[in-house]
Amino acid sequence: MTASDLVELRRDLHRHPEPAWREFYTTARIVEELEERDLDALYVGPEALAEGDRVGVPDEDELDAWLDRASDAGARGDVLERLAGGLTGAVAVAERGDGPTVALRVDIDGLPIEESAANEHHPAAAGFRSENEGYMHACGHDAHATIGIGVLDAVLDSDFAGTLKVFFQPGEERIVGGEPMANSGHLDDVDYLLAVHVGLDHPTGEIVAGVDGFLAVSQFEAEFVGNPSHAGARPEEGDNAMQAVATAIENLYGIPRHGDGATRVNVGVVEGGTATNVVAERVAIEGEVRGETTELMEYMDDRARRVLRSAAEMHGCDVETATAGRAPSTRSDDGLREVVAAVARDTDGVTSVLESDHLGGSEDATYLMRRVQERGGYAAYVGVGTDHPGGHHTATFDVDEASIDHGVEVLSRAVVELGARRP
Amino acid sequence: MTASDLVELRRDLHRHPEPAWREFYTTARIVEELEERDLDALYVGPEALAEGDRVGVPDEDELDAWLDRASDAGARGDVLERLAGGLTGAVAVAERGDGPTVALRVDIDGLPIEESAANEHHPAAAGFRSENEGYMHACGHDAHATIGIGVLDAVLDSDFAGTLKVFFQPGEERIVGGEPMANSGHLDDVDYLLAVHVGLDHPTGEIVAGVDGFLAVSQFEAEFVGNPSHAGARPEEGDNAMQAVATAIENLYGIPRHGDGATRVNVGVVEGGTATNVVAERVAIEGEVRGETTELMEYMDDRARRVLRSAAEMHGCDVETATAGRAPSTRSDDGLREVVAAVARDTDGVTSVLESDHLGGSEDATYLMRRVQERGGYAAYVGVGTDHPGGHHTATFDVDEASIDHGVEVLSRAVVELGARRP
Amino acid sequence: MTASDLVELRRDLHRHPEPAWREFYTTARIVEELEERDLDALYVGPEALAEGDRVGVPDEDELDAWLDRASDAGARGDVLERLAGGLTGAVAVAERGDGPTVALRVDIDGLPIEESAANEHHPAAAGFRSENEGYMHACGHDAHATIGIGVLDAVLDSDFAGTLKVFFQPGEERIVGGEPMANSGHLDDVDYLLAVHVGLDHPTGEIVAGVDGFLAVSQFEAEFVGNPSHAGARPEEGDNAMQAVATAIENLYGIPRHGDGATRVNVGVVEGGTATNVVAERVAIEGEVRGETTELMEYMDDRARRVLRSAAEMHGCDVETATAGRAPSTRSDDGLREVVAAVARDTDGVTSVLESDHLGGSEDATYLMRRVQERGGYAAYVGVGTDHPGGHHTATFDVDEASIDHGVEVLSRAVVELGARRP
Amino acid sequence: MTASDLVELRRDLHRHPEPAWREFYTTARIVEELEERDLDALYVGPEALAEGDRVGVPDEDELDAWLDRASDAGARGDVLERLAGGLTGAVAVAERGDGPTVALRVDIDGLPIEESAANEHHPAAAGFRSENEGYMHACGHDAHATIGIGVLDAVLDSDFAGTLKVFFQPGEERIVGGEPMANSGHLDDVDYLLAVHVGLDHPTGEIVAGVDGFLAVSQFEAEFVGNPSHAGARPEEGDNAMQAVATAIENLYGIPRHGDGATRVNVGVVEGGTATNVVAERVAIEGEVRGETTELMEYMDDRARRVLRSAAEMHGCDVETATAGRAPSTRSDDGLREVVAAVARDTDGVTSVLESDHLGGSEDATYLMRRVQERGGYAAYVGVGTDHPGGHHTATFDVDEASIDHGVEVLSRAVVELGARRP
Repeated sequence: MTASDLVELRRDLHRHPEPAWREFYTTARIVEELEERDLDALYVGPEALAEGDRVGVPDEDELDAWLDRASDAGARGDVLERLAGGLTGAVAVAERGDGPTVALRVDIDGLPIEESAANEHHPAAAGFRSENEGYMHACGHDAHATIGIGVLDAVLDSDFAGTLKVFFQPGEERIVGGEPMANSGHLDDVDYLLAVHVGLDHPTGEIVAGVDGFLAVSQFEAEFVGNPSHAGARPEEGDNAMQAVATAIENLYGIPRHGDGATRVNVGVVEGGTATNVVAERVAIEGEVRGETTELMEYMDDRARRVLRSAAEMHGCDVETATAGRAPSTRSDDGLREVVAAVARDTDGVTSVLESDHLGGSEDATYLMRRVQERGGYAAYVGVGTDHPGGHHTATFDVDEASIDHGVEVLSRAVVELGARRP
Repeated sequence: MTASDLVELRRDLHRHPEPAWREFYTTARIVEELEERDLDALYVGPEALAEGDRVGVPDEDELDAWLDRASDAGARGDVLERLAGGLTGAVAVAERGDGPTVALRVDIDGLPIEESAANEHHPAAAGFRSENEGYMHACGHDAHATIGIGVLDAVLDSDFAGTLKVFFQPGEERIVGGEPMANSGHLDDVDYLLAVHVGLDHPTGEIVAGVDGFLAVSQFEAEFVGNPSHAGARPEEGDNAMQAVATAIENLYGIPRHGDGATRVNVGVVEGGTATNVVAERVAIEGEVRGETTELMEYMDDRARRVLRSAAEMHGCDVETATAGRAPSTRSDDGLREVVAAVARDTDGVTSVLESDHLGGSEDATYLMRRVQERGGYAAYVGVGTDHPGGHHTATFDVDEASIDHGVEVLSRAVVELGARRP
Repeated sequence: MTASDLVELRRDLHRHPEPAWREFYTTARIVEELEERDLDALYVGPEALAEGDRVGVPDEDELDAWLDRASDAGARGDVLERLAGGLTGAVAVAERGDGPTVALRVDIDGLPIEESAANEHHPAAAGFRSENEGYMHACGHDAHATIGIGVLDAVLDSDFAGTLKVFFQPGEERIVGGEPMANSGHLDDVDYLLAVHVGLDHPTGEIVAGVDGFLAVSQFEAEFVGNPSHAGARPEEGDNAMQAVATAIENLYGIPRHGDGATRVNVGVVEGGTATNVVAERVAIEGEVRGETTELMEYMDDRARRVLRSAAEMHGCDVETATAGRAPSTRSDDGLREVVAAVARDTDGVTSVLESDHLGGSEDATYLMRRVQERGGYAAYVGVGTDHPGGHHTATFDVDEASIDHGVEVLSRAVVELGARRP
Repeated sequence: MTASDLVELRRDLHRHPEPAWREFYTTARIVEELEERDLDALYVGPEALAEGDRVGVPDEDELDAWLDRASDAGARGDVLERLAGGLTGAVAVAERGDGPTVALRVDIDGLPIEESAANEHHPAAAGFRSENEGYMHACGHDAHATIGIGVLDAVLDSDFAGTLKVFFQPGEERIVGGEPMANSGHLDDVDYLLAVHVGLDHPTGEIVAGVDGFLAVSQFEAEFVGNPSHAGARPEEGDNAMQAVATAIENLYGIPRHGDGATRVNVGVVEGGTATNVVAERVAIEGEVRGETTELMEYMDDRARRVLRSAAEMHGCDVETATAGRAPSTRSDDGLREVVAAVARDTDGVTSVLESDHLGGSEDATYLMRRVQERGGYAAYVGVGTDHPGGHHTATFDVDEASIDHGVEVLSRAVVELGARRP
C-alpha cells in the first residue's frame, strides 16, 4: 500500500469507531485487506482469542445492533459471520524463512466519546468524522491498525527471513482484549514482540524506543443492594446502599500507600437510588486499582475488596463485585529498545529519538509482552510521536497522518533487523 | 354524576397518569367536567397558580412531548392552550349564599412508576392500566380528583348556603404544586379547608377525621464540580467530585438529632463520573431533609448546606445547590376534626372513625392549610380508607372504588355542615 | 435533724465527693447517721446490691486509694470494712404500720470535675469546697443524700402508718448503680416509689410533680486493636486502628433515625495511638446510644455494634466492646404525680408547681421505677427547684440550701399521704 | 579514648536517655569529654543553634524537672546553666591545616519508650538499663554520640590537615533539632559532611556507604475546638469536634497519591472528649505527611491543611494547626559515597560494603546535608551495621558494641582522606 492508501484506510476506520467486542466493521475491513496479501495463515475472531478469558462482553441485543451497523456500512457478511458473539480481532502470519518469529501488536477499538463537529477539527472538516454517533477514535487506534497493515506490506516487500505475526487486538480501551489474545497460543513461539502507540504527547518526528512505567491495573464494578424504605416514615427499615457506597468510597481512597512502590485507586463512576424520599436500595460504582508491579496492584485489589465487603455489611447490604478489566505491569526490554532506537535514528522524518519514557497509565499490551517475556522472548512498547491538537480521549483528538509513515518505517525496519538474528 | 360515572372518570384519569407540571390531559379532562357544572368561576392553569413560585418545571421539549400525548389522547385543544408552559391545575368556585367559604383540595398528578401488567392487578385485568408507559397513578390521585368532582356535585345538589371552592392541585408528588397554589390568592378568603387522601393503610370503610404528623420537608439537588484528571498518571491534578460527594453523604446522615423533635435526612439519588480511569469531574445528588416542625426542617437544611459546602471545599470542588421542592408542617384543627368525625360516624358504609392518625411523611397540602390557618381559618386533612393490594408508590397499588363514594359522602356532608356556620 | 443540721450534713458530703463504687466516706457518713435512728433494718453495701449486676468497678489499687482517703477523712473503719470491693450504698427500712410500703430513692455519688476555687463560688468562699481534688458534687447528689436523711426524720416524726424504705444509691453519674440496686430484692414489695432531683433549671420554690422524658441509654466502650507499622517505610503493614475508629465514628452518627420516636448517639471520648510516625495499633472510644423507649435504644445499640464490628473488619482490626452503663426509659405515674402536686401546692416556700417536665436525658432511677411498676406499683420522679449559679456538671454548680427543706417537706408529706392509702 | 573507654561512655549515655530539648545530662557529659580535648572552638547550647528555629520546646516545669534529674545524675552545674531553656547540643571544632572543612553529625536524644527489664536484654543484665524510667535509647543515639567522640580522637591523632567539626545534634527523634542546627552558621563553610546511623537492619560488619530514600516529612498537630452540649437533651447545640476529627482522618488518608513519586500520610495520635454524654468540645490529633521530594511533602501538607480546615468548618469547629517537626528530602552524593566505600572495604572487621540502601523513613540530618549541598559542598549518610536483637524503637533494642569501633574507624579514615583533598 502506498502512503496515500494507508491514509485512506485510516480515514475509513476513523469513520467507523467501534468499542470493545463490537469491532465488527473494523475487523472485517482489516480481514479484507489481509486476504489480499500473500499470507501463510490468517486467524479471525474465535481463532485469534482464548474465548474463555473474555470479560465485559455486551448482551446479544447490543451485539446485534453493532453487527447491523457494520453490515449497513458495507462490511462483508461472510466475515461478520465469523465474528458472531463479539469475537473480534485477527492475527496475520507470514513465514519468510527460518529466522526468529517477530510479532507486532496493534489495537483496533474506539471510545464512547462524541467526536467534535467543529470546523477546526480536521476529520470533521475533511469529511471523515465518526459515523457512529457518540463513538470516536480518540486515541489513535485507527492509525495503529493502519500501521499494522503498512508494516506487513513493508516486511513482505523486504528480505525479511523470519516469521512475522501481526496481532490486531480488540478491546484495549476497556483492557479486556489483551488477556484472551495473549492466551490464544499465537504468542507462544514469538521471539520478539513490538507494540506501538502514537502520540502520548510526543510530537511528530519523535520516537520512544521503549516506553516504560506501565501500572498494573484491575478495574472493578461493585453493586450494593440493600432494602428501600420511606425516608420520612420508616428510615429505620431501610438498609441504605447510599451510606454503604459513601463509606466504601471514603475508605477506598484511604487504602494505605505501599512501601514497595506506587499504587493508585479511583472510583470513577457512581449511579443509584430512585427518589429523594426513598432510602436507596441499589447504588453501583465502577473503579480501579493500580500498582507499579502486579503484586502492588493485587495488594490494592485485596484491600479494596475488603473495604467493599465491610462497607456493605456495615449497612446491611449485599455487594456484588466483578472484575471488569485487568492488565499486569511489565517493562520494555533493553536489548529491543536499542534495536528500535538504532533504526529510528536512521529513519527519514525522525528528528528525535528517546530511549525511554514513563507512561504512568495502564495498557493491556502488557499481557502479550509478559507472555513473550515469560517464555524467554523479548518485548518493547514503541512510541511514535504525532502532533495531536486535542488530548487523548478528548473530542478534538486527531493524529498527524505523516506519523503513520514514521511508524511503518521504524517498525518494519526493526522487524527486518530482528529477523536477521539467530533465534 | 352517579357513582358509576365517577368510577368511569377515575378510570379515565388512571389511564392517563401525568407527572408534575405535565398534567395536561388530566387538567383538560377536569375542566371539561367543570364546564358542564353551574359554577360562578373557574380558574385554569395560570389563573390558579402564583406562577413565580413554581420550581421543577421541565424544559420545553419535555412539556411539548406531554402536550402531544395529551392531545393524542383526546384532550381539548383550547384547554391545552391555556396550560402552555406547564401551568396545570384548576380552581372551581360555586357561590351559594353568604355563609362561610369552604374549600376542598385534591391533588391530581401521577408517578414515574411502571404499572403492573399482571392479571391480578385489577386495572390491568379490567383494561384501564396506564397508557403512559412508565407512569402510573400509584398513590390514588386519580381517585382524589374524582372525589373533587363528586363533592362538587353533591354540594351543588344540597342546601349548602356558603361558597365552595375546589382546588385541583398539580405536582404534589414532587411537592412543587402546593406553594404556588397556596399563593394564588384563591385561599385568602377561605374559612374552612379540607384536604383528602385515600388509603394510607386504612381499609375501606375507615375514616380518619384529621391526619397529623406531617413532617416539614425540603428537597435539595447538589451538583459537585471539580476537575478531571487521569487517575493513573496524574491523580494529584484532579479535584475529585466523587470524594466530595462521599464525604457529604457520610456527614449529611451524621447531622445531629434535635432535642425539640423528629428530624430526617436522606440522600436518595446519586449519579456522576465518566470512566474508571478518570478522576470524577462531576457528581450530583438529590436528597431531602425533614422536621417535625418547619423550624426543625430549617435546622436540618442549614446544617445540610454547611456540609455540602465544606465537603466541596475540602476536595477543591464547587457545589451548586437548588431547592427542588418544599412543604411546611402543620396540624389538623381540632374543631374541624370533630365536624368530620361526626358526619363520618353517621355515613353509610363507614364502619370505623379515627379522630387522628400519624402520617410520618410530608405533603404539600400543608402549604394550603397553613395559608388558611395563618389568616384565621381552619383546616383538616381527611383520610378515606381504601383497601389497597400493593403499597403506595408500588406497581400494584390500586384503590377500592367503593371508597370513592365514602369520600364524596363524608366530605360533601362536612362541607354542607360547615356552610351552615356563622363565619 | 434541724434544717441547719441538714445543711451541715450537706456541706460535709460536699467536701468529700466520690465517684461510682468509691462512695466510701459518703456511705459511711450516711450509715453513721442512720444508726442513730430507730430503724427496723439497715442494709449496707453488699446487702443493698445485687453484686453480680455491677459494671464499671475500678481495680483494687484505685479502690484502695479511695478507701485510704475516706479513712483519712475520718470515716469509721468498721463501716468501711463492710464496703470492701467497692460495694457502696445503703437501704434504710422503718416499719410503722400495715399500710403500704413507700420508698424514696436518692443518689449519692460525685463527678470527676475540678471544683471552682473562685470567691464567687459559695462552697469555696464558705469553706466547704471539695477536698478530693479533681472531684466535685456538681449535680447536687450531696443535697439528695441529705434530703434522704431529712425525709426519714420527718416521716419517723409523723403518724405515718406504713413501711418506709430509703435507698441511698451509688453510681448514678455513670448509670451503673441503678440496676444492681433495683435487683437487690428490696424494691420487690414497694407500692410507691419517689425519686428526687434538685435543680434541672427549675428555680428555688418550684416543684415538678413528675418528671418525664427519660431516654433509655446504653453506654459502650470500644477498643480497636490492629497492628502498628512504620508509617513512612511500611504503611501497608499496618492494620490501622485510627482509620477504623474514624470510619466507626462517622457511621455511628449516621445510624438512621427511627419512625417510632427519638433516638440519640454520641461518641464522647477518644484516645489512642503512640506517635506520628507509627500506624496506630490501638484506639479506644467511649460512647452511648439512647432511645425514647428501651426498644428504640436497643435498635440503636444493635446498629452501633454492627458499625463497630464492620469498621474494625474493614481495617483488619479487632474490636472489643463492653457495655459501661445502661438505663431503661420509663414514665412517672399520673396518680403519684397528682399526690405530689397536691401536697406541694400546700407547702410553705413552694411558689410554683408543675405537673410535669421533660428531662431529655437519662437517669438510672428508671431501673428502680420500672422494677416497682412491673410488679404493680407506682413511681414518680420529683423535681425540686433550686437556684444554681452554674449549670449541672460545671465547676460552679451549687444548690440553694433553702431548697433542701422544700424537698424534705414535699417528699415526707407525700410519703405520709401515701402511707395512709389502702395498699 | 580506648575502645573500652568508648563502651563505658556509651553505657553511661545509655543509662541517661533524654528526649528532645531535654538532653541536659547528655550534653553536659559530652562537653566534659570535649573540654579534655585540644579543640580550637567548642560551641555549646545557644551557641550551636539558631534559637528562633526551634519548635516543640517543652514548658518550664518540664524543663526544670529534667534539669534536676540531670543534676542529680551528676551533670556539671556550670554546663547545665549554659543549656537553660532547653538549648541543648554542641559543636566541636579542630583546625589542623588549610585543607577542606570536614564535618560529622551525630544525634544524641532518646525516646519515650520503657526499656525492657528482661534478663535477655543486655543493658538490663549488664546493669546499664535506663535510669530515666519510661525513656530509652532505643535507636542507638548513645552509640552515635560515642562515635562522635571516637572519630574526634582518631582524627586528632592522625595527620589530618583540614578542619574537623563534630555536630552533636539534639532532637532528631522529634525531627526538631536538625533545622536550628543547620541554620546555626556552623555548617556554612563545610565542604564535606558525613552523618551516621547504626543498625537499620544491617548486621555488624556491614557498612552502607551512602543511605538514600529519605522522605521529606512534616509533622502536624491539630486541635479541633467546638462547643459541648448534652448529647441526650441538646445534641443540636453541640459543635462536635469528634465528628470533625473523624471526617478529617478519613479524608487525610484519602489525599490523592501523586504521579511524581511516593507520598505518605498518617494520623498517629488522637485524644479528646470528656464523657459519653457530652458532645465533644475538643479533640486533638497528631500526624505527619511525607514525600519522596520536599515538593511532594509540601503537596501533601497543603492538602492536609485544606482537609483539616474544611472538616472543622463542616462541624462548626475551629481548628488550630501547628507544625511539630519537619525535614526535607535529600540524597547522598556519589563522590562521597565512593570515598566511604573505599575506606570501608579496607577496614578491619568490615565484612560487607553496600554502595547504597533505601531508608523509606525520614531524618532531619537532611537539613544539615542540604545546607552543605546548597552551598556547593557534599554530604553522605553512612550506615554502620550492628546486630540488634529488637527492632529500632522497641523495648529490646540494643547495639552490638563492636560496631562502635567500626563506625569510628571507617568515619575517621574517611575524614582524613577528605582532609587531604584540595578544597
